[in-house]
Amino acid sequence: MGKGRLEAFSDGVLAIIITIMVLELKPPHAPTLEALGALWPVFSSYALSFLYVGIYWNNHHHLMHAVHRVNGRLLWANLHLLFWLSLVPFTTAWMGENHFDTVPVAVYGLSLLMPALAWPWLQHEIVREHGRDSLLASALGRDFKGKISIALYLAGIALAFYNRYLACLMYLAVALIWFLPDRRIESKIQDSKQD
Amino acid sequence: MGKGRLEAFSDGVLAIIITIMVLELKPPHAPTLEALGALWPVFSSYALSFLYVGIYWNNHHHLMHAVHRVNGRLLWANLHLLFWLSLVPFTTAWMGENHFDTVPVAVYGLSLLMPALAWPWLQHEIVREHGRDSLLASALGRDFKGKISIALYLAGIALAFYNRYLACLMYLAVALIWFLPDRRIESKIQDSKQD
Amino acid sequence: MGKGRLEAFSDGVLAIIITIMVLELKPPHAPTLEALGALWPVFSSYALSFLYVGIYWNNHHHLMHAVHRVNGRLLWANLHLLFWLSLVPFTTAWMGENHFDTVPVAVYGLSLLMPALAWPWLQHEIVREHGRDSLLASALGRDFKGKISIALYLAGIALAFYNRYLACLMYLAVALIWFLPDRRIESKIQDSKQD
Amino acid sequence: MGKGRLEAFSDGVLAIIITIMVLELKPPHAPTLEALGALWPVFSSYALSFLYVGIYWNNHHHLMHAVHRVNGRLLWANLHLLFWLSLVPFTTAWMGENHFDTVPVAVYGLSLLMPALAWPWLQHEIVREHGRDSLLASALGRDFKGKISIALYLAGIALAFYNRYLACLMYLAVALIWFLPDRRIESKIQDSKQD
Repeated sequence: MGKGRLEAFSDGVLAIIITIMVLELKPPHAPTLEALGALWPVFSSYALSFLYVGIYWNNHHHLMHAVHRVNGRLLWANLHLLFWLSLVPFTTAWMGENHFDTVPVAVYGLSLLMPALAWPWLQHEIVREHGRDSLLASALGRDFKGKISIALYLAGIALAFYNRYLACLMYLAVALIWFLPDRRIESKIQDSKQD
Repeated sequence: MGKGRLEAFSDGVLAIIITIMVLELKPPHAPTLEALGALWPVFSSYALSFLYVGIYWNNHHHLMHAVHRVNGRLLWANLHLLFWLSLVPFTTAWMGENHFDTVPVAVYGLSLLMPALAWPWLQHEIVREHGRDSLLASALGRDFKGKISIALYLAGIALAFYNRYLACLMYLAVALIWFLPDRRIESKIQDSKQD
Repeated sequence: MGKGRLEAFSDGVLAIIITIMVLELKPPHAPTLEALGALWPVFSSYALSFLYVGIYWNNHHHLMHAVHRVNGRLLWANLHLLFWLSLVPFTTAWMGENHFDTVPVAVYGLSLLMPALAWPWLQHEIVREHGRDSLLASALGRDFKGKISIALYLAGIALAFYNRYLACLMYLAVALIWFLPDRRIESKIQDSKQD
Repeated sequence: MGKGRLEAFSDGVLAIIITIMVLELKPPHAPTLEALGALWPVFSSYALSFLYVGIYWNNHHHLMHAVHRVNGRLLWANLHLLFWLSLVPFTTAWMGENHFDTVPVAVYGLSLLMPALAWPWLQHEIVREHGRDSLLASALGRDFKGKISIALYLAGIALAFYNRYLACLMYLAVALIWFLPDRRIESKIQDSKQD
């Protein structure tokens, strides 16, 4: 079985998730800058979640390069990941509308933790289907980032009950560690092509 | 005519169906765990329907492997299936918002029964276009599960008027019989490849 | 330039149009059959528009088989068609919520007339790009249906001010003449392949 | 890495952006032409934004022809463009609902300016990945239009505080300069093919 439809369906779901979040950015009734400014918590929640879903799409794009065959378990591991990601618009809106209040910030962290826990299962199913070749070894090399992410999410969820902005800083930190060193993996792939 | 666009359009519609359901998960106004907990019927309806649409996507993915040519009747049989599936977000929201009340639970069962009845027509049109080759024979072998599903849906719809949780158990049972033994078919396909 | 992305984008927009219409099917607050039954005008508007968008997708699918090259004008003729189709969810909801009242029924007819007028422009741009080969000749043979459709839409819009149900009958008639004899064209294509 | 998924994801996001805007066109409660006519600001905002997103899709389609390889930076430059475009439905709705009031018109201009500023970065990343071949040279030839667009957006944002209709005229002017001379580039590409 080919991976074409798996990619197409995942792209579709991720594109919809990333886009329907903007529906929670409801236009204010007054035509003033103050009314617009009052939306900053909703807007910044949106921007943060856009970044997150973008990172997942980007990593999914990279991970699927390692996939040659698809089986039922892999399809379900992928749907499981998409399920948790599909809840991000909900937690994003809740956090934004409540101006980063304690419980919504903790639950937002939980909604980021769940796909982070779903990701290793997806990797595992891919390795199981394909055996341990070199491309997947470099993918597993990324597990270090995955483990740090999970630790930071847990820290953020706990910190939300002490200082909500520290919690958000934890979430932002995870986004940055995924956003920035992405190039290292690419260069690894390019190196292996040059060999 | 190719099957590419049929798959792409179906993927698009299924991806949207599975994702817009989350729009019914409206963020509560209060930033408390109680307010979040009060959403459990909406959330569990969402999770059940996500599982259902995921199963349809998964089975559609498998069924389309047997398709080589597409005709107008097949396109319409497919659209007919998508029509009934497109109503699932509506019945899901109605059931969730009314805390699994009798009539919404029965109507939800009806909204699951209709695509289950649409599925054999789609299979029939594929067989008619392609003749009876071996891959489709194994697909027809699945009809047993289809017939049990229809019986369980009918039982669930009737049971809703006596005990709504028993009805939901019937629906969940259908999800499980489709979710679990999917692998048997894959191994059949793999066996046929090894011959 | 290839037609792949034109098809993908059109599929995406049509899939979204056909699916977001269901968002107008708002779950009733009461968990009763009466509350559900009160939705019949919204539901039947939805079903009619689903059929229409399905017909456009089906015809678009067929028409694109005749396309080998894409230019800027063709892309815009296609976007123009999609623009008018994108308004169908709006007129569908207005008609449904107002129980097939006079003006909404006439405006719904207008929203079906506009894509019907956009279609010949799209055909014209395809012919202009490709020259007049045999496949497009059979596509132009379909113009007869297009002209009847436009006449029936105009009749429906006018009739809406006398009898709204007669107007809906006109719209339904257009759907049926497109829905039914689709096979004739396919057999023509198959004949040409057998030659 | 291939560009297929980049195109598919961008198509998905653009198709959703262009289509969810219609959700802001909320059906009026009264079934009268007056009630419909009162929607003209919302409708004309929608039409203008549809044209804009259509132009971006069209230009994206053209630009991607010059892309052969994709890297992480290019993916992010593309996501950055999509982020700003994803805000267009929000500013469109705000402007429409407030009948082209001063601040919403200026903010709408800003929401058009941001993707216009994101576009050169995307071009830059493509050139960096591919080197300066002839197809991209013609793409860079388009930079003239890009610079005029940015100047017109800035003029529109400033003018909004004096005369909101002049501001809208500026935005419309940008749409027209992109909409009309698109063919010149195509002929350039066709010329290069004939050489």
